[in-house]
Amino acid sequence: MKINANYKNLNESYLFSTIARKVNEYKAANPQKEIIKLGIGDVTLPLVKPVVDALKKASDEMGVKETFRGYDDQIGYPFFKEAVAAYYKKKNVTLSHNEIFISDGAKSDIGNIVDIFGKDNTVLVPDPVYPVYVDTNIMDGRKIVYIAASKENGFLPLPDNKISADIIYLCSPNNPTGAAYNRDQLKLWVDYALSRGAVILFDAAYECFIADKALPSSIYEIEGADKCAVEFCSFSKTAGFTGVRCGYTIVPESLIADGVSLNKLWRRRQSTKFNGVSYIIQRGAEAVFSKDGQSEILRNIEYYMKNAGLIDNALEKKGVYHTGGKNSPYIWLECFDGRESWDFFDYLLNTCGVVGTPGGGFGETGKYFFRLTAFNSYENTRKAVEKLSAL
Amino acid sequence: MKINANYKNLNESYLFSTIARKVNEYKAANPQKEIIKLGIGDVTLPLVKPVVDALKKASDEMGVKETFRGYDDQIGYPFFKEAVAAYYKKKNVTLSHNEIFISDGAKSDIGNIVDIFGKDNTVLVPDPVYPVYVDTNIMDGRKIVYIAASKENGFLPLPDNKISADIIYLCSPNNPTGAAYNRDQLKLWVDYALSRGAVILFDAAYECFIADKALPSSIYEIEGADKCAVEFCSFSKTAGFTGVRCGYTIVPESLIADGVSLNKLWRRRQSTKFNGVSYIIQRGAEAVFSKDGQSEILRNIEYYMKNAGLIDNALEKKGVYHTGGKNSPYIWLECFDGRESWDFFDYLLNTCGVVGTPGGGFGETGKYFFRLTAFNSYENTRKAVEKLSAL
Repeated sequence: MKINANYKNLNESYLFSTIARKVNEYKAANPQKEIIKLGIGDVTLPLVKPVVDALKKASDEMGVKETFRGYDDQIGYPFFKEAVAAYYKKKNVTLSHNEIFISDGAKSDIGNIVDIFGKDNTVLVPDPVYPVYVDTNIMDGRKIVYIAASKENGFLPLPDNKISADIIYLCSPNNPTGAAYNRDQLKLWVDYALSRGAVILFDAAYECFIADKALPSSIYEIEGADKCAVEFCSFSKTAGFTGVRCGYTIVPESLIADGVSLNKLWRRRQSTKFNGVSYIIQRGAEAVFSKDGQSEILRNIEYYMKNAGLIDNALEKKGVYHTGGKNSPYIWLECFDGRESWDFFDYLLNTCGVVGTPGGGFGETGKYFFRLTAFNSYENTRKAVEKLSAL
Repeated sequence: MKINANYKNLNESYLFSTIARKVNEYKAANPQKEIIKLGIGDVTLPLVKPVVDALKKASDEMGVKETFRGYDDQIGYPFFKEAVAAYYKKKNVTLSHNEIFISDGAKSDIGNIVDIFGKDNTVLVPDPVYPVYVDTNIMDGRKIVYIAASKENGFLPLPDNKISADIIYLCSPNNPTGAAYNRDQLKLWVDYALSRGAVILFDAAYECFIADKALPSSIYEIEGADKCAVEFCSFSKTAGFTGVRCGYTIVPESLIADGVSLNKLWRRRQSTKFNGVSYIIQRGAEAVFSKDGQSEILRNIEYYMKNAGLIDNALEKKGVYHTGGKNSPYIWLECFDGRESWDFFDYLLNTCGVVGTPGGGFGETGKYFFRLTAFNSYENTRKAVEKLSAL
């Protein structure tokens, strides 16, 4: 038996394990010092009540013969797809149930979607980047080209006609930079993809954090995107579902690539290698879209965005270049005094006990940048910001 | 953009849609006639109370800050892996937590495991077969060779040293035939795999139906299997989790193939393309292994096996050749009077309103066979058996 030899080309990421080791060493050496983690990529607020109630009600239904549900052969129940379609309707995007694929999270679908693409495509990935985009393509042996996000382009790289690409990854608002594309910028990407028969894989996992209503929160708000883009969305950050697991992927019926309907291809992939999401979880996720669900979730998002605002304002006042924090829970800042990101990590930890994530861990262009997140408590975020401001 | 051209080699399965159409036509023509479905592959009994209670308790925990859980970075919580390990301990199989991968179901893992294997392996698949084994390998363009299960070998094909294979699919108790390997037979497969450095993918989704304690319910009961086999298990049939979604895959740390630890390879795959199973669902599945959970689940299994016994006895009495029904909820029978399976389907439907699944839908060797299942109610199964006996 021969293994998939492409796995030998994967780099192990020691980013978070190295951070953990450094924090533990600091703790051991400074047992009395307080540490505040602004590197958290996970949510911290619990599920809202309408979701918990829906989960419990559905659990009860599953314990009664008359309301028990077995296999969900439709890759998502109609009641839930209806809720997703209604959510998109508010963005002036019309979706049929057939275009909505319910999954156990955006990471699974972003990871698995490459199954339906040939190995001989060239993949375009912005740098810095969510490592899953890169690793899943290394696993398949595809050629990857990077496009640099930088201070010069505001960490929002635009298409370069000199670069030939077949599959394009975009994430907006971005992880890790928090930068969000406007309509004109996304239109350039859509036109670029259409002009060369490329497919955009659009990661919209952070769309709920967009506060500026002029910014698009779905790529389908851009004309032509239904002919070139797949969109991934998640309840992880929207509704604190990181430990609940639910997301959805939109594959428009009008998306024809290489003469084939990608919708049909993805349906074939999912019906062969996936058996749907728990009925219980789908009911919980449906409640996210209810009136009560939406208002409670909005409160949680506002809580995180208040934290982001604290960091954003402090950096503004200090005159530190940064992106994010306005339409994203992530803040991506230039390390103080031209430091390299791991050096800055040590500096922050040692001078004020604040932990963040070195930008170098997300790619070459992140070498002099640093990621802070809004997912700690308000009290802790305020304390950390005071310490940062005093530096 | 080029699609994965292997998808063009997939056959669409019209098995269940054709059955549905024929049943609907019969209903329209005979509105007064009763139809009894013994073709159901899904469970019908609801979740047991200990599971429902655990799901609700975990849902409540997720609504409280102090007990909320986010990402499960370990591909399964220790509390749950501990329960799985204890279950295997009863089979005299010792597993470390590291060898247990919790997933959203056996179908996902059986579908995704091929990611870690090279495309140039030869795959050995018994015929008749669960279509996922075949389709996932067609999607990757691997060479597939079939080994015939037949009346001659009791639908339990044994290794043939003339056949060269790198990846071997085994399912015991089998879907669709219900036949279960004994220790000596499985040992022959393990020895065959070890002798040629092949890997066995062992689908144990129906292990809980094994009533004969002399039969192995895990391939790891066979010496040497920890060096050549991956085992997939599911709560779908065990505990009625078809709509809850939870399973687990065992990849022994001692399983080295092509000089590489498959455990490490699978961990890399899962940590890149998967984000774990809902905490709520893991708590529900843990309750399956509790004392109360086990006793209630055993009652459900006995209920289904009483149905299987009814069918088994009736066929025995009638002198119809069949496999399964004793250690499996499936009964695989030779069609009466030498009929071809679709012809037999029509015959059964028209003479007694009983619906089953034509064996031809599972592969070439199923052409004169037919699958009945034990998942309908006792009353309906009894009625159907009386009608079958009178034929």
